[in-house]
Amino acid sequence: MHPVLRALVIDLELSIVLLGGVAPATSLAEQASLTEGPLVITKQGSFFIGGREQLSTSLGRGKSAGPPGTITVDQVYVRYQTPPRAEMQPNIVLIHGCCLTGKSWETTPDGRMGWDEYFVRRGFSTYVLDQAWRGRSAADPSAINAVADGHLPIESLPTESSASHEGAWVLFRFGPRYGETFPGLQFPVNAADQLWKQMVPDYAGGLPKPNPTVPALAQLAQRIGPSVLISHSQSGIYPFQALVADPRNIAGIIAIEPAACPDSKAELMPYKGTPILVLFGDYIADSPGWAHILQGCRDYVGALKAAGGRAELLVLPETGIKGNSHMLMQDFNSLQIAGLLVDWIRNSGR
Amino acid sequence: MHPVLRALVIDLELSIVLLGGVAPATSLAEQASLTEGPLVITKQGSFFIGGREQLSTSLGRGKSAGPPGTITVDQVYVRYQTPPRAEMQPNIVLIHGCCLTGKSWETTPDGRMGWDEYFVRRGFSTYVLDQAWRGRSAADPSAINAVADGHLPIESLPTESSASHEGAWVLFRFGPRYGETFPGLQFPVNAADQLWKQMVPDYAGGLPKPNPTVPALAQLAQRIGPSVLISHSQSGIYPFQALVADPRNIAGIIAIEPAACPDSKAELMPYKGTPILVLFGDYIADSPGWAHILQGCRDYVGALKAAGGRAELLVLPETGIKGNSHMLMQDFNSLQIAGLLVDWIRNSGR
Repeated sequence: MHPVLRALVIDLELSIVLLGGVAPATSLAEQASLTEGPLVITKQGSFFIGGREQLSTSLGRGKSAGPPGTITVDQVYVRYQTPPRAEMQPNIVLIHGCCLTGKSWETTPDGRMGWDEYFVRRGFSTYVLDQAWRGRSAADPSAINAVADGHLPIESLPTESSASHEGAWVLFRFGPRYGETFPGLQFPVNAADQLWKQMVPDYAGGLPKPNPTVPALAQLAQRIGPSVLISHSQSGIYPFQALVADPRNIAGIIAIEPAACPDSKAELMPYKGTPILVLFGDYIADSPGWAHILQGCRDYVGALKAAGGRAELLVLPETGIKGNSHMLMQDFNSLQIAGLLVDWIRNSGR
Repeated sequence: MHPVLRALVIDLELSIVLLGGVAPATSLAEQASLTEGPLVITKQGSFFIGGREQLSTSLGRGKSAGPPGTITVDQVYVRYQTPPRAEMQPNIVLIHGCCLTGKSWETTPDGRMGWDEYFVRRGFSTYVLDQAWRGRSAADPSAINAVADGHLPIESLPTESSASHEGAWVLFRFGPRYGETFPGLQFPVNAADQLWKQMVPDYAGGLPKPNPTVPALAQLAQRIGPSVLISHSQSGIYPFQALVADPRNIAGIIAIEPAACPDSKAELMPYKGTPILVLFGDYIADSPGWAHILQGCRDYVGALKAAGGRAELLVLPETGIKGNSHMLMQDFNSLQIAGLLVDWIRNSGR
């Protein structure tokens, strides 16, 4: 690019940021305007955090087993985009849930902008990861091959599970039974086939605790600087565990429908210094499992606030925002919710 | 963004494209200038191509098995970015090789720009996929769980293999033995740990032939329009198979060190109308396996040219470009090679 043009582009970006990128946008019309027009990125890329080397005698099966060799597992794949002037705000780290990958946060099943891009357009450096042993973060096939070749007993086979369409429909609160929807549901069920395609086998049930993704989150924050960790569902407890292990650079935690909050009766001191938002969608009362989890989070947030912590519980229908499923980052009003999170992040820094 | 500013941005983008984005760049200095400065994207996102529903009674194991349910497999995850004025050029589709995912084409192990971004900066809409059953494209865990629960015999376990560091070092021609490098090697071996973290279990050996990625490639081209398919290694034969199945919108094939070229004695008619480039790096003579494959590709390209086809074989050291490994999209001169491909694509359209 010609130097004069480049300077002009940079000036223009700054003007754009000052005029539209950083000012809080509260109306739906303003939200919409932020999602249009070209996207300017100063840097993007991908890398891995964590990982350990493992010697294996069973990297293949039968004749393809080959000699013993080393592989690397437990690493976490991270992709990021940085917009102009992102250094004025914390990084956003998006951590997907069960049986899914970082794809959850990208283009919605019905083709709308994902949160991965929305936060970039709102001026945040945004990092999307695949949990350890999932998606682009390697699993270890050794035990499967060793069983296949008779070197290990069947009991050594790893836990590897997938969510069914039928099961996920109910668990994600699209409706009370597969094929039925709750009244006013915001999830684009007509495009559910694109959600089903996002699902991949999940090894998490057989991994050590904490999940290897947890230390990777702490390491990631060390590498990239102050970060707000946004979890979903299965990964809900991970940022809390990372915070207890190493609070440096964890600027905030947003738990979207966490599968569990920390125990309200545990030592709360490690959580007190960090802004924490726990968010739930609609139809919780129609789902006993979720109602139980929400109660646990109410107890935790209540105890933490009573202890002087900076925690907040937001149940969307209680604020007038209705119809949200468990997959609220893909619901029709997904960007409205992301906008609420941007406002919360900016206010939490004050 | 203010409408006046938005219009100005768009004008500026067009100027940038006309001044620097589309004109062929042949010198290394020009290549470097293309990789600096902000990146402007008009659209980005991700989606899945293909996929079939499969009923399973073994989505978990033991108590976690749950009721029978449906999952979707064989779909292919695709992520894309579109720069301004991309409609003037064909799309680029990047298809990774064995034991890897689309990450191969992103940021290099030592942190330089990947081809995924380079082609966007050269004005191409660029699509990166994860092969079926790999990375963000789901595998089916049913057989593993069914064996674990005693419902299927051990022989039913799927083929799932990983490449070892030691094996890949030699196969990727970093050197004659693990830890030794060929003289003048361009691969950043000091950052090899980041390459090892890219490797994931590979089910391809047990999948039907053609690999489900092949029909997905044909479908992808139908969806996105004229496309140059760039394969690597294991995926080398896929674009040729897609071309034979359905040539519509396959504007060209670039096979980077394919594991196999089509048989030179087969019917060559289906390949005659499409520009085809087969590219190999250095040290082939030191690697009997690769020498054999290169000979097969020489035979194929020679036969196709003799039959009136538009094929070309490029062995980099024969043109004076030396030191390239099998992972040449990650070698120090990776963008120089990508630049050659851009020149080839633009010339092939004439």
